[in-house]
Amino acid sequence: MAMLINGQPGEQISALDRGLAYGDGIYRTIEIRQGQPRLWAWQYRRLAADAARLKLPVPNDALLLAEICQLATGLEQGVAKIVLTRGVGARGYAMPADSQPTRMVSVTPWAGYPAERARDGVNVRWCETRLASQPLLAGIKHLNRLENVLARSEWTDPAIHEGLMLDTRGLLVEATMSNVYLVTGQQIITPKLDQSGVQGMLRDWLFVHAAQLGYQMEEAEIAPAQLQAADAVFLSNSLIGLWPVASIDGQPLPQAHPCCAQLQALLAAEA
Amino acid sequence: MAMLINGQPGEQISALDRGLAYGDGIYRTIEIRQGQPRLWAWQYRRLAADAARLKLPVPNDALLLAEICQLATGLEQGVAKIVLTRGVGARGYAMPADSQPTRMVSVTPWAGYPAERARDGVNVRWCETRLASQPLLAGIKHLNRLENVLARSEWTDPAIHEGLMLDTRGLLVEATMSNVYLVTGQQIITPKLDQSGVQGMLRDWLFVHAAQLGYQMEEAEIAPAQLQAADAVFLSNSLIGLWPVASIDGQPLPQAHPCCAQLQALLAAEA
Repeated sequence: MAMLINGQPGEQISALDRGLAYGDGIYRTIEIRQGQPRLWAWQYRRLAADAARLKLPVPNDALLLAEICQLATGLEQGVAKIVLTRGVGARGYAMPADSQPTRMVSVTPWAGYPAERARDGVNVRWCETRLASQPLLAGIKHLNRLENVLARSEWTDPAIHEGLMLDTRGLLVEATMSNVYLVTGQQIITPKLDQSGVQGMLRDWLFVHAAQLGYQMEEAEIAPAQLQAADAVFLSNSLIGLWPVASIDGQPLPQAHPCCAQLQALLAAEA
Repeated sequence: MAMLINGQPGEQISALDRGLAYGDGIYRTIEIRQGQPRLWAWQYRRLAADAARLKLPVPNDALLLAEICQLATGLEQGVAKIVLTRGVGARGYAMPADSQPTRMVSVTPWAGYPAERARDGVNVRWCETRLASQPLLAGIKHLNRLENVLARSEWTDPAIHEGLMLDTRGLLVEATMSNVYLVTGQQIITPKLDQSGVQGMLRDWLFVHAAQLGYQMEEAEIAPAQLQAADAVFLSNSLIGLWPVASIDGQPLPQAHPCCAQLQALLAAEA
């Protein structure tokens, strides 16, 4: 683990930071390959959008990139994490007028997930934990993640790789750490994230690149029964890449559709 | 500021603490008088209940009390804060099997709020920010507080002392940092906190002590229009004590009902 806190080597922050007190901040998790963050432009665009929505100062693109590269020097494969908070504040919820954000950049070596998950697919389950509807926070990768923690605590079986989550209306939102896509013919649908959920960087990437492969990708309201009826279901996040879903609660899903493998190939070709 | 982190003097925590990464923890804010935490038994009971709901180990009552008193020695009036997190964890939402909680206890000198607020009442406003419905987290004083941060950021006018919050159904829940009560005759009602909101320690205290004064106190679903129709509205939290509400969005509220002053007198007599 190598970390820079506001540009200085260190691994500790003030216990008075609003990131701890209120979860008042955002983060991103980024794959490192050959010392560089993958898909940096996509990551930065989402980080900047999330910061703006929470009225956090948007950190400089080149500064963040330089800090990641400094820590990732010589690293073949790893994970970078950026955490950006509203900094140390006096007691009380009000955003301090003079707040100095805290910027944490860390890099850890990491060998990736087992390759068979991307090839053969993963086993998922339905979580009992529902995501609350909060339009003001929906889509943001913020530090208020107790719902995800509760959902992920529902199972310990290592043969289950992810958990699908519904909102309080009973509509599909995401999996605990990934976005979800349903493929039917040449159409890909993914849940709207206007009420809850995290808008992953690869979701943005897929909207652009699925079209290049001739797929029509759209946001939709998705009921649970639609997953078993789809030609294919897959997941995305910046560390897993794209994982086909092989089964949901033990029920196998069709694996013949080429869409996920085509998108994986396109993604593998990206810097 | 004096702070103990897991019993050791210090003011820094690991940047890998799950309290920061996910808001995976709880807290309490406690008034200090003459070197002692006020209403400690009530505070501890709520802390323990919140910890149990998030599957956090419940810290020892006597240990916490001793740490607060150690830091508060000789302090006439102040504020203690306890923050309890699931500790440092590896990447990922899953609760680590071997997690070592982080326990932060801090004490700061503090002169209290202006006395006229408790005597003459406070001006409040309706917040636009709605609280999402999440039964699994409702009532817990956890570290996922972005909704409160957003609500409190809606105003800067120092003549406005608090903001009332509705849930997404349009029902009253709480104010940004306090619980809310409506008095009509000998009846006191306060919002149910089964969908959102924070269950303050004084709310528990009021349920017991309002009855001693002959009031019937109940939880209810409360629509905004009911506040202007009540004989009195008041707020509670452990630092403000009880504040009568003098006006809502500039509309004055009746101040003649004796309930709040009676309860303030009873509260003042508590250790």
